[in-house]
Amino acid sequence: MAGELVVIALGGNAIKQAHEEGTTEEQILNVDKTAREMALIIKAGYRPVVTHGNGPQAGALLIQQEESRDHVPAQTLAVCGAMTQGQIGWMMQNRMSFRLLEADIQRPVCSVITQVEVSEDDPDFKDPSKPVGPFYTPEKAQELQREKGYIVREVKPGVTNSWRRVVPSPEPISIVERESIKQLVEAGGIVIASGGGGIPVKREADGSFSGVDAVIDKDRAGFKLAQDINADKLMILTDVEKVYINYNKPDQKGLDSISVAEAEGYLNDGHFLAGSMGPKVQAAIRFAKWSGKEAIITSLDKALDALEGKTGTHIVK
Amino acid sequence: MAGELVVIALGGNAIKQAHEEGTTEEQILNVDKTAREMALIIKAGYRPVVTHGNGPQAGALLIQQEESRDHVPAQTLAVCGAMTQGQIGWMMQNRMSFRLLEADIQRPVCSVITQVEVSEDDPDFKDPSKPVGPFYTPEKAQELQREKGYIVREVKPGVTNSWRRVVPSPEPISIVERESIKQLVEAGGIVIASGGGGIPVKREADGSFSGVDAVIDKDRAGFKLAQDINADKLMILTDVEKVYINYNKPDQKGLDSISVAEAEGYLNDGHFLAGSMGPKVQAAIRFAKWSGKEAIITSLDKALDALEGKTGTHIVK
Repeated sequence: MAGELVVIALGGNAIKQAHEEGTTEEQILNVDKTAREMALIIKAGYRPVVTHGNGPQAGALLIQQEESRDHVPAQTLAVCGAMTQGQIGWMMQNRMSFRLLEADIQRPVCSVITQVEVSEDDPDFKDPSKPVGPFYTPEKAQELQREKGYIVREVKPGVTNSWRRVVPSPEPISIVERESIKQLVEAGGIVIASGGGGIPVKREADGSFSGVDAVIDKDRAGFKLAQDINADKLMILTDVEKVYINYNKPDQKGLDSISVAEAEGYLNDGHFLAGSMGPKVQAAIRFAKWSGKEAIITSLDKALDALEGKTGTHIVK
Repeated sequence: MAGELVVIALGGNAIKQAHEEGTTEEQILNVDKTAREMALIIKAGYRPVVTHGNGPQAGALLIQQEESRDHVPAQTLAVCGAMTQGQIGWMMQNRMSFRLLEADIQRPVCSVITQVEVSEDDPDFKDPSKPVGPFYTPEKAQELQREKGYIVREVKPGVTNSWRRVVPSPEPISIVERESIKQLVEAGGIVIASGGGGIPVKREADGSFSGVDAVIDKDRAGFKLAQDINADKLMILTDVEKVYINYNKPDQKGLDSISVAEAEGYLNDGHFLAGSMGPKVQAAIRFAKWSGKEAIITSLDKALDALEGKTGTHIVK
């Protein structure tokens, strides 16, 4: 098992397209496309550990939990995260196993339910900003604030009924199940882990971990996963083949290979959107800086080409 | 890692008590009690692979999926099974890790999302009998039959609005993720697997597995897991310390150690209830018969004593 160990953080499109409703059938079709690309990467000799987002799935589940609240106890946000790891993990391991079988590759694939440690002292707990779950009327939002202690915010100021619950998005400190993930990888397995940024947990005084109402950014968690399992590369997949500076302007320019210092410069100059390319570039910078190894940002269909240095944006120390 | 490898199939009480609502907090407390017992077993040198049911959790999720159907696409039964594996698996690995830490034992614990293969030719597909999800009025049941193709049945004949969807409960053929589970066990890990009887999948013509609308009995799946990972023992935990013949009658008698032939005799004589002790005894018989090794039925609080031969019902070849 000498191939490079690559943590691959999938984009949202890998599971659900924006225009879709989100039926099981639609999601399995999307996951299957992703699985084909992963099989190509494995066939080429790489050892991927795959991580993914869960935004639309967690959103749907939170609506279901909310709407049935009078009949069935709504589970905590941590439990909902765990549930979407099962949901998406199953679809991924199912289709990846098949695409490997088709390529005549015998490698066990499985999903590991993954907790990610965060700190209560993270500044984001003081000023939560990540919207989760359904949209509310101002009245309903206030009721939830009163009764459930939710922090609510009008996420599109001026737009009617655009109130939502907001939760912290703290920094990941460590991947709790890193040893199990490493064991599987060392035995030649393909692992799906830390879905949805991981189930956020904090360390209690007695040493136990307890679930917290938070959502960890999946690319940041992907960086932490790559760090904790000592990956050779971190690859973050998104909608575009390369990272651009002056994006959507006449002098737009795709980046091929840049240093950490250059990437930090572009980031500080505001070239990357906060909710979009920003966190991806940040996660890539952290990996390159910490490990001295390469981080790549590209699109799903270019993933193998990018690993082979033919395209994508490469950030190196 | 020379300790005996034991597949432990937990009873429903291990996660949710019958009188409880099923909040996250209640379930974590129950799971914690279970985790303490598992830690004792690990401390005594055994290597458990833990499996569990998901009845109440899947039931709650199906109600939530159903009630929000107009806003959010309901996921398939296979996906719901995967989601409850994430939910329960997380709680278990979380509390088991803590109880091991407390006992000064360094062993990684994780949950593996697990598919279980079934056959479309299983006779149960012709005559589904396992009720799942909410209770319906006869009108709603007929509507779902018409629109969704559900098979519905009045599960308590004569009781108003006791219509439910019924699905097949086919025999498990193989644990798809057995290699990953074995890899983790061999590396010294504690694994939670095949929750809720596993995600039922069938083999398609192209070689892929697809999810099926079915529910596999968790004790039968536990037997198959024990077989597939070559466990030394299968232990099925339930409400009672021992299996009884003439249960609740004046001549009731607890069974200590019986042969497969004796167990089959009692089973055929109708000593064990079909929906309750029957499938447990059947699963235990299969394991003892197939492996020549020991199957044990006992209660959670007697689990370690039973492994050490002090109590419980032992079925041997």
